[in-house]
Amino acid sequence: MSDIVRIGIIGGGRIGKVHAINLTTRVAGVKVAAMADPFANDELVEWAAGQGITRVIKDYKEILNDAEIDAVLICSPTDTHAAISQEAALAGKHIFCEKPLDQDPDVIRKTLEVVKKAGVVFQIGFNRRFDHNFRAVRRAVEDGTVGDVHILRITSRDPSPPPIDYVKVSGGLFMDMAIHDFDMARFLTGSEVVKVHAAGAVLVDPAIGKEGDIDTAITTLWFENGALGVIDNSREAVYGYDQRAEIFGNKGSAGSANDAPSTVVVSDAQGVRADKPLFFFLERYSESFAEEMRDFTKAIREGVEVPGAKAALNSVLIATAAKESLRTGRPVEVPRA
Amino acid sequence: MSDIVRIGIIGGGRIGKVHAINLTTRVAGVKVAAMADPFANDELVEWAAGQGITRVIKDYKEILNDAEIDAVLICSPTDTHAAISQEAALAGKHIFCEKPLDQDPDVIRKTLEVVKKAGVVFQIGFNRRFDHNFRAVRRAVEDGTVGDVHILRITSRDPSPPPIDYVKVSGGLFMDMAIHDFDMARFLTGSEVVKVHAAGAVLVDPAIGKEGDIDTAITTLWFENGALGVIDNSREAVYGYDQRAEIFGNKGSAGSANDAPSTVVVSDAQGVRADKPLFFFLERYSESFAEEMRDFTKAIREGVEVPGAKAALNSVLIATAAKESLRTGRPVEVPRA
Amino acid sequence: MSDIVRIGIIGGGRIGKVHAINLTTRVAGVKVAAMADPFANDELVEWAAGQGITRVIKDYKEILNDAEIDAVLICSPTDTHAAISQEAALAGKHIFCEKPLDQDPDVIRKTLEVVKKAGVVFQIGFNRRFDHNFRAVRRAVEDGTVGDVHILRITSRDPSPPPIDYVKVSGGLFMDMAIHDFDMARFLTGSEVVKVHAAGAVLVDPAIGKEGDIDTAITTLWFENGALGVIDNSREAVYGYDQRAEIFGNKGSAGSANDAPSTVVVSDAQGVRADKPLFFFLERYSESFAEEMRDFTKAIREGVEVPGAKAALNSVLIATAAKESLRTGRPVEVPRA
Amino acid sequence: MSDIVRIGIIGGGRIGKVHAINLTTRVAGVKVAAMADPFANDELVEWAAGQGITRVIKDYKEILNDAEIDAVLICSPTDTHAAISQEAALAGKHIFCEKPLDQDPDVIRKTLEVVKKAGVVFQIGFNRRFDHNFRAVRRAVEDGTVGDVHILRITSRDPSPPPIDYVKVSGGLFMDMAIHDFDMARFLTGSEVVKVHAAGAVLVDPAIGKEGDIDTAITTLWFENGALGVIDNSREAVYGYDQRAEIFGNKGSAGSANDAPSTVVVSDAQGVRADKPLFFFLERYSESFAEEMRDFTKAIREGVEVPGAKAALNSVLIATAAKESLRTGRPVEVPRA
Repeated sequence: MSDIVRIGIIGGGRIGKVHAINLTTRVAGVKVAAMADPFANDELVEWAAGQGITRVIKDYKEILNDAEIDAVLICSPTDTHAAISQEAALAGKHIFCEKPLDQDPDVIRKTLEVVKKAGVVFQIGFNRRFDHNFRAVRRAVEDGTVGDVHILRITSRDPSPPPIDYVKVSGGLFMDMAIHDFDMARFLTGSEVVKVHAAGAVLVDPAIGKEGDIDTAITTLWFENGALGVIDNSREAVYGYDQRAEIFGNKGSAGSANDAPSTVVVSDAQGVRADKPLFFFLERYSESFAEEMRDFTKAIREGVEVPGAKAALNSVLIATAAKESLRTGRPVEVPRA
Repeated sequence: MSDIVRIGIIGGGRIGKVHAINLTTRVAGVKVAAMADPFANDELVEWAAGQGITRVIKDYKEILNDAEIDAVLICSPTDTHAAISQEAALAGKHIFCEKPLDQDPDVIRKTLEVVKKAGVVFQIGFNRRFDHNFRAVRRAVEDGTVGDVHILRITSRDPSPPPIDYVKVSGGLFMDMAIHDFDMARFLTGSEVVKVHAAGAVLVDPAIGKEGDIDTAITTLWFENGALGVIDNSREAVYGYDQRAEIFGNKGSAGSANDAPSTVVVSDAQGVRADKPLFFFLERYSESFAEEMRDFTKAIREGVEVPGAKAALNSVLIATAAKESLRTGRPVEVPRA
Repeated sequence: MSDIVRIGIIGGGRIGKVHAINLTTRVAGVKVAAMADPFANDELVEWAAGQGITRVIKDYKEILNDAEIDAVLICSPTDTHAAISQEAALAGKHIFCEKPLDQDPDVIRKTLEVVKKAGVVFQIGFNRRFDHNFRAVRRAVEDGTVGDVHILRITSRDPSPPPIDYVKVSGGLFMDMAIHDFDMARFLTGSEVVKVHAAGAVLVDPAIGKEGDIDTAITTLWFENGALGVIDNSREAVYGYDQRAEIFGNKGSAGSANDAPSTVVVSDAQGVRADKPLFFFLERYSESFAEEMRDFTKAIREGVEVPGAKAALNSVLIATAAKESLRTGRPVEVPRA
Repeated sequence: MSDIVRIGIIGGGRIGKVHAINLTTRVAGVKVAAMADPFANDELVEWAAGQGITRVIKDYKEILNDAEIDAVLICSPTDTHAAISQEAALAGKHIFCEKPLDQDPDVIRKTLEVVKKAGVVFQIGFNRRFDHNFRAVRRAVEDGTVGDVHILRITSRDPSPPPIDYVKVSGGLFMDMAIHDFDMARFLTGSEVVKVHAAGAVLVDPAIGKEGDIDTAITTLWFENGALGVIDNSREAVYGYDQRAEIFGNKGSAGSANDAPSTVVVSDAQGVRADKPLFFFLERYSESFAEEMRDFTKAIREGVEVPGAKAALNSVLIATAAKESLRTGRPVEVPRA
C-alpha cells in the first residue's frame, strides 16, 4: 500500500455520496479511486467529476479486481452487504460496510468469519459513535466521572417516517432505526445487552401498522454489568431530529442535549425561543461521518480500533430479540455472540 | 362552617409540621385548631406555639369529636391512614390524607366508599401535581400544544436511600417512591395506565436487596389512550433530587428540567458550572405543599377538583402491578378501578 | 422590647402592602401592630383585617408615639422619607425605609446623622441584595471563585415604562430605576464607584423625552479597586423584566440569568420555546422582599448588617453623577461619601 | 476566468495556512495555484504539498504577474496590507485582505480608491460576520424580530493575552482586538457608529500597561439610528474565548451564547458542569473561515456582497476614535467615512 489509501466506493446513493465528499474534502491521505453503481449514469459521472472522482463504473467487481485499490466502502442496498463483504475480504480489501451487515445473525456470523480469515480491517457504519456529544458521554464513563453505570437512557426520534415502500423492506423499527441505539447502548455503557423487553405502538401512521411494523417504542435493556437501560423511539418528532443520551451512575450523571444551528435565544412578547435541533442525520451527524472515515483510514494504517465484528453482530442480535419481545409480549434473552 | 376553615392535624412528624407551617404562614382563611400526636411532648408543644398553634393533644379522636373543626390532615403512619380516614369521614370531617391511603387495594376501596357516603372532601397527598414545572407540562397537554400523547418519560431519583428500617416497612420502591410517578403519569397524560412492565436491580445498596426490595428500576407503562410511557427510578442520585418529565406527542414535546437554587453560571479554568438541583422534596416541592393546602381549602369552600379517590386507588393498583411484574418478569395488566 | 418585634407600617400603598403580607405570613417573630396612611379608608381597613392587622390609622405620628412599637417601615412617598426617618429616629424606632431616602445628598447626610445619633437600626430598601441569583453572584466574589474583579455587567430592563405622571416626579431614570443597579454594582463588586459616564437616549416613548428624561441608557462605572463596569437600562423590555448580572475576574466569571415561572421547554414545528421571565419586580423579587424583612428583624435582634447608611447615600451620589454626566457629555467623579 | 477560481496566497503564516486548508478541502470550485512567503522553506513546501499546493515561492510579485491567477489572499504582516492591496488591484487581481487594511485611515482611503478604480472584488477579513451565531442574531434584526434596535451588547474576551512583543506592534487593544467588535457592531445593528466613549484599564498584566496599552475596556457606542451600544473586552478570560452578542429592540431581544465542544452536562456531588467554550478563534470560528472563503469566491463569480471598503475603513475610524477617547477621557465623534 502506498502512503495514500486508495478507496473504491460501492454504491452511489445518498450515503455513498456523503462518504465520497468527506473523503475528498475532509480526510487527509486518501483518494477515491473509483465509484461503482449498477445504475451509474451521466448525472452520477458529472457529480463525481465535481468531487475529483474520475472513474465511475457499473460493476463493483472491477473495484475488487483492481490491485491498486486498498479498501472499499460498501454503500449498496442492505441485502447485498454480506455477499459483497465476503467477496471484498477474499479480494484482500479493507472493508467499511454500512449497517446492518445483514438482518440474519447467521449470515453475519458467516461473513465475519470470512473477513476474519482474510485479516482485513472491517468497520461497520455506526457513525454515531463518532458524534462529539455521545463521545463526551462515553468519556464520562471511561474516565470514571459517572462511576458504575446504573441507568442508560436514550431518546432517538426521527423527524418524519420513511416512505411506506421503504418501511416494507426495512426490517422494521428495531432492525432499521433502533439498531443505531442498540449499538449506542453498548458503546456508552461499555457492556453487552443480555435481555430486552420491547413495547411498541402505531401512533404516527396507521399505514406503518398495516405493514406489521410499529412507529413508537419503549425498549428496556438489561446489561451484563447489571445496569438497566431504556430507549424511546418515535418515527416522527415534528420539531426535528431528537438524539439524546444519558448515563447515570453511582458517582453522577452525564447527559447530552440535541445540537442546534446556533446558540441564539430570542425573547419577545410571545416568549423565549431557541433554534430547533438540526433537522436530520445528515445535518446532525455531518462531522461524525467525516470522523468515521478518518478512523477507517487510521484503522488501515495504524490499527486503531473501530466498531467492527462485535458491533455488527450484537446490534442485530439485540434487534432480533426486541422484535421477538414485541411479538411475545415478554422479555427475551439476547444470545451470546 | 365559619369563613375560616378550621383544621386539625393528625400526626406531628416531618410532613405534619410542613403542612402546619404552610397553613399558618402561606394559606389564607384557615386556622390550625389542633395538632394530635400520640408522642406529643414539650418539644412539640413549644414548636407548635411558635407557629401559633396552641392546642397540642395526644389523642386524635378529640379532633374528630370537636364540632368546631372542619377538616383533618392525616399525617400519621401509613398503616393508620385508612382507618383514620374512615373515622374522620364518619365524623363529617373533610379529609386530606398523605399517600398512600393504604397498600391494599381492597382496603382503599372500602375506605373510599365510606368517604363517598359521608360526602366529605377527600384529597390524597400527591403534592407534585401542584409543582410549577409539572403543571406547565400538563398545561402543554391540556391546551393541545403537544397534540396526542405518544410517549411519556419520567425521571425520578432520590438523593439518597432511606434507612433500612424504613425500607423494611415501606412497601418497596414501587409502593413507596414510584407511586408518586405513577400518579404523575396519570396526571400528565390524562389517561389511565392499563398495563405495566417493571425491570429492577439492586445497584445502590445490597442491604436493600436483602430486604427483598430494589433500588433501581425501569418501568414501562401502557396507557388507555394508546400512549407508551417509561419511568426510571433510583434511590441515590449523588447530585441531588432529580425530578424531570417529558410528554411527547404528534405536535411536539414539553419537558421539564430540575429546579436549582439560582440561575448563576460560573465559568473558570476548570469548566462551566451551575448549581446542583434543589436537594430533596422539602426544598424542591416547598411551594407545591403550600399550593396543595390552598387547593384543599378551595375544595372545601368552592368544590374545586383535587387528586382524590381515583388517584388514591389507581396509583396503588399500578404499584401493585409493577411489583407483580418484577416478580414474574412479565407485563401485568392493571385492573380497572 | 418583647420577644416579638412590633412593627408599624407607614404608607398603605403597593409596597406597604407587600411588606405587610410578608411580615404576617413569611417572617417569624414579628407583629404588624399598626398601619398608617393619610388616605386610609374602609377598603384598606378591610384588607388589613384580612391580614390580621386590626389597627389602621391616618396619622403616622400615632405610630411614632406608641411605646409598644419597636420599628417602622417607611413606605410613604419619596419626598417624605427623610423627614419621617428623622422623626422616627428621634422617637427611638428602628427604621426600614424604602429607597431612595431622598434625592438630595445633603438631606440624606443630615438624616443619616440624626439616625446615627439615635442609635437605631436603619435599613434602606435595596431588596435585590436579597435575591437568590444576585446573592449567588456575590458569593462567587466573596469566596474568591472569580478572583479579582475586572468587569461588572448589569442588564436591568423594566417590562414597560411607568405612567408619564410618575416620570415627572421620579427624579429620572438614574435616580428612580438605575439606582437599584448602582447599589447592586457596589454590592456585587464590594467596591465603591468613583467615576461615572452615562449615555442616554429616548427610544421607547417620546413623551418621556418631553419631560427631560431618558428611557434607555448605557452607564460606565469606574470602581475604587480598579475594575470597570457597565449597566444597560431600558424602560421597556416587551418580553418582561430583565435582570441579569455578571462579574468577570482574573479567575473566572459568574453570571446570573433571569428567573422564569417554570423550567419547561416546548419543542414543536415552530421551534423550541421556554417561559418568558417572571413579569416584574413583585414576581421576580417576591422572595427577596420577604428576606429583607427577615434581615430587618435580625438586625434589630442580633445586629446583623443590612444595607444602611452607605447604601442609602452612595447610590444617590452615583445617580447624581450619572445625571450630571448625561447633561455634560463627560465622565463625572463621584464624591466620597 | 475559467470555471475554477485560481487563487494565490500571499503569506504562509498561521492564517494563510488556515485559508489554504479551507480552500483545498471545504470550498468548491477553487484551486490554490501558489503560496508566497519571503521565508518559504522546505517545511512550508512540504506542508503545502500535503494540501496539494505544489507551487511555493518567495516573491509574491510572481503571483501578481501570473495571468492564470484570478485572486489573491493577503495574509502578510499588517504593515504590508495596503501596499500589496494596491499592487494586486493594479494587477487586476481580486483581493481578500486580512484585517486591518491599515491603521491609518488616510492610507486606507487611498488604497480603497485604487481598488475601486481597478474594479476588482475587495473583501476584508472580518470572518466573524460568517459565524452561525452572529448571523442568527443579525437575521433577527433583518427580519424584524427584534424591531427597532435600542441596545447592542457585545462581550469579547480572549483566552490569554498575546506576547508583549506582539502588543508593541499591535496598534493596541482597540485597533488589534476590538476592531472585530466594532465591525460586528456595524454588522449587527445595520447602522454606523457616530460617537465613541472608551474606558480602559490594565488589570491583566502590568507589562501591557508599560507599553502604553490596556487589557480591559468598556466602550460605549452611539449609532446613527439612535441606538446605544456597549462592548466589554478583556485580554484574558481564563475559561476560554468568550464571544457573545445581544441586540435589544422595541419588539424583543436576540442574544447568542458561546459555542462549546459538546452539549453534555455532567452532574455529580460537586455540581452541574458543562464544557468550557471552544478555546480560541481557530476553534470557535473554524466554520466562519471556510464560509468567508466561499463568499469570496461567490463575490468573484456572482457578485454577492462581502464586507468590503466600508467595513475596512469604518472599523479603523471607530478604533481610532476609541483610542482618542481613552486618551482624552471624553466621548469622540467618529468622522463620516
